[in-house]
Amino acid sequence: MSQQKGLPKRSENYAEWYNELVKRADLAENSAVRGCMVIKPYGYAIWEKMQAQLDRMFKETGHANAYFPLFVPKSFLEKEEGHAEGFAKECAVVTHYRLKVNPDKKGSLMVDPDSKLEEELIVRPTSEAVIWNTYKNWIQSYRDLPILLNQWANVVRWEMRTRLFLRTTEFLWQEGHTAHASAEDAMKETRQMLEVYAEFAEKYMAVPVVKGIKTANERFAGAEETMCIEAMMQDGKALQAGTSHFLGQNFAKAFDVKFLNKNNEQEYVFGTSWGVSTRLMGALVMAHSDDNGLVLPPSLAPIQVVIVPIFKTEEQLNAITEKVDNIQMLLRAKGISVKFDTRDNLTPGFKFADWEMRGVPVRLAIGQKDLENNTIEVSRRDKERGQEGAKMSVSLDAIVGTIQQLLTEIQENIYQKALDFRKNNTHVAHSYTEFKEILATKGGFVMAHWDGTTETELKIKEETKATIRCIPLAGEQEAGACIITGKPSKQRVLFAQAY
Amino acid sequence: MSQQKGLPKRSENYAEWYNELVKRADLAENSAVRGCMVIKPYGYAIWEKMQAQLDRMFKETGHANAYFPLFVPKSFLEKEEGHAEGFAKECAVVTHYRLKVNPDKKGSLMVDPDSKLEEELIVRPTSEAVIWNTYKNWIQSYRDLPILLNQWANVVRWEMRTRLFLRTTEFLWQEGHTAHASAEDAMKETRQMLEVYAEFAEKYMAVPVVKGIKTANERFAGAEETMCIEAMMQDGKALQAGTSHFLGQNFAKAFDVKFLNKNNEQEYVFGTSWGVSTRLMGALVMAHSDDNGLVLPPSLAPIQVVIVPIFKTEEQLNAITEKVDNIQMLLRAKGISVKFDTRDNLTPGFKFADWEMRGVPVRLAIGQKDLENNTIEVSRRDKERGQEGAKMSVSLDAIVGTIQQLLTEIQENIYQKALDFRKNNTHVAHSYTEFKEILATKGGFVMAHWDGTTETELKIKEETKATIRCIPLAGEQEAGACIITGKPSKQRVLFAQAY
Repeated sequence: MSQQKGLPKRSENYAEWYNELVKRADLAENSAVRGCMVIKPYGYAIWEKMQAQLDRMFKETGHANAYFPLFVPKSFLEKEEGHAEGFAKECAVVTHYRLKVNPDKKGSLMVDPDSKLEEELIVRPTSEAVIWNTYKNWIQSYRDLPILLNQWANVVRWEMRTRLFLRTTEFLWQEGHTAHASAEDAMKETRQMLEVYAEFAEKYMAVPVVKGIKTANERFAGAEETMCIEAMMQDGKALQAGTSHFLGQNFAKAFDVKFLNKNNEQEYVFGTSWGVSTRLMGALVMAHSDDNGLVLPPSLAPIQVVIVPIFKTEEQLNAITEKVDNIQMLLRAKGISVKFDTRDNLTPGFKFADWEMRGVPVRLAIGQKDLENNTIEVSRRDKERGQEGAKMSVSLDAIVGTIQQLLTEIQENIYQKALDFRKNNTHVAHSYTEFKEILATKGGFVMAHWDGTTETELKIKEETKATIRCIPLAGEQEAGACIITGKPSKQRVLFAQAY
Repeated sequence: MSQQKGLPKRSENYAEWYNELVKRADLAENSAVRGCMVIKPYGYAIWEKMQAQLDRMFKETGHANAYFPLFVPKSFLEKEEGHAEGFAKECAVVTHYRLKVNPDKKGSLMVDPDSKLEEELIVRPTSEAVIWNTYKNWIQSYRDLPILLNQWANVVRWEMRTRLFLRTTEFLWQEGHTAHASAEDAMKETRQMLEVYAEFAEKYMAVPVVKGIKTANERFAGAEETMCIEAMMQDGKALQAGTSHFLGQNFAKAFDVKFLNKNNEQEYVFGTSWGVSTRLMGALVMAHSDDNGLVLPPSLAPIQVVIVPIFKTEEQLNAITEKVDNIQMLLRAKGISVKFDTRDNLTPGFKFADWEMRGVPVRLAIGQKDLENNTIEVSRRDKERGQEGAKMSVSLDAIVGTIQQLLTEIQENIYQKALDFRKNNTHVAHSYTEFKEILATKGGFVMAHWDGTTETELKIKEETKATIRCIPLAGEQEAGACIITGKPSKQRVLFAQAY
């Protein structure tokens, strides 16, 4: 009953609009377990579509899946110093392995003090430590390299302030972990996976992204270099949608992973890691949706076409059903997912709003008049209600071709809208005064010269809440002066407030 | 380098044969984390094939996937008394959410005592508690039912003695959790999922199973009835390969989940849960493999056909490669997965043994003579080396049809061998003396009359280590007398020593 009251408007309360939308579109909800979410079937179906595409892309680039333990012994986490520092403050710690009946309180359980672990286990916040400890045994010679693995898993990072999909204590993700014989190979892999993520975001999620390099301050704990894709949400904020890390020999040194190279010398192995998570669900929602609900790109929509019958009598419904059965068969034969909404206790108007809330790209409505005229009403979700081309009447004979074309068009249109929005909300600041003014009045992405120091970066962050999202890979190389210190800079970097 | 020394023989040390095989075939290995395993890429690829089939079968029977939190608050676990008792002794308990630098020991981390949780969190051993607590908010009326969900997840049950795949502290599984408006509907679902599991085991794993009902003593903690499929391993022991539970209203009562029925009355919801796990990997290995390594059914083999070139000169290899490229293309067009083993530092003999170890169903070898004769050597993994039909020479023109037929034949042959083995190792015991003699001399499944009491069941277990695996659904109904007490019995039940 998702549309009983309207959504908050984006223009009035963007944060509240997002939260309500995620719940009303049946994507996810907060669980009774602090900071953890329940991903509901409709939301999970979108995640499965994302997984399928990403998994295919990983395999096409030579990776295989494997599975490593949920628990990281505390001593493993300690081995790479930067890594340990980065994650220590958000670790769920297992200290005991048994409960027992509480003798003082009937029907209740207590932790059995006799089951205390000698060494605490951390619920993985990420798996570098466990995996490099394993790679140690798998790698002897250059012939064992590269190792190109990925795992689909849940991870836990204790968060004090959580938001559905965007920041949750437990989340689902994939983490790639590769091992290479040279820095060049590892860097090539790091860049390759960044490209895979960018292609996925743009082609399937219809979300344009800026590819770039993180500053030292924003780097992954334990990496030598972190590359990322950054997307713009409709409130102008940035959302980091994926990261790919060049680990150098850091983890190889921490876990003593060496190989015999072609010159018969022992050398430390080079590594990468890369991941995207259920956070992408948040990006998908915030990039495209409107005040009536979700807008899903056809590539990731669990239901691409919904058909709503409009009838008064059972006889009319039967006549409609006969036509619809045929349409469904034809569409499914083309690989298009269709749902015929035959719920008998809801009005067509209610159903229209319900499917709008869930972001189904194409809605078909068919009633008595349509039967007489051999037509069907086609509505596209990516246009506003009442907007030119949002609704049209189509001959039933042309329906399959029309829908195929429409799905392609919608996918492209959603992407183009997001790209235009980003263009319109990306500004160049030539001075710190202008920088602050842009952020205060327009928001969005701000391109500005920066002197390369963490000090300047943190000063700007403190004063404006904007952080350096990345040093864009495609950024124009041009000499300039830092907007704060006036020191020389080679290219403008991307600043924004971020999720 | 899997075959550097031979496997232990099944006849000499079955347990050791299994452990070594799992490691040498690169399926899994023990991790440095106590009781947890690393599932290696080749093992995980088989698991992915299992998942794909099961997931399809679940969806075809109307289920959708969702995801629920990893953590179960202790108070949730307490709510269903039998459930709590059943799992309390094997719970990994999270008590803190932060580490900090140990001031007494440079570079080391300690649990931050200030981060103690008010309520401990249990790493899910299963998700009934978390899910029924969620269903409470999803269900108001009969219109909200049934709820038909599944989740693919990791679970943790602390085990003192672990064995790869068969019994590990963390394992991967799927758990279905459904809610219904009547006991009949829930029971129908329980049976339906048992049928799905049986079909999967027999059709894809090529493992024949006995479908049956567990005794009260072997029932799932919190269920009213547990149904199961039981498979026979090559040492005659039973392995429970899947369970489907009718939960009655137990969890609905524990979590106060009521619905308004069609008569406008409040009623508790009826539930089921059902699961299979990475334990199936153990069953697959133990049901079919031999002293040379794995034997995989073609339906689940990540590589169905391997091609080994036999050559001396580069020129010969090039000529072979040209032929093989064409064969690969033709086979892939038929949906057959093929690998061309071009490793240049290994002999053909080594490769043969390597692929035998990994259980690839069909091996092709092609050398100079074959090129001249337009033939290729075809070997099937399901027959013993040297056995009639294990190896044949086939015209290259007939290769695709031959392989298609062969894969079907191998799938059927593996199933038939397992079925024959089970038949030959299932015995009827008419007295307790005979029962003990069968177990001592032959092992396997023993069918015997039982008086229906837990007392008798436990006495037999204590004296013989055999347990009642199930009361077979297809068991003949015939009056008899319990082999221990002489009390009346309606049908023979299935006893066996079990994994």
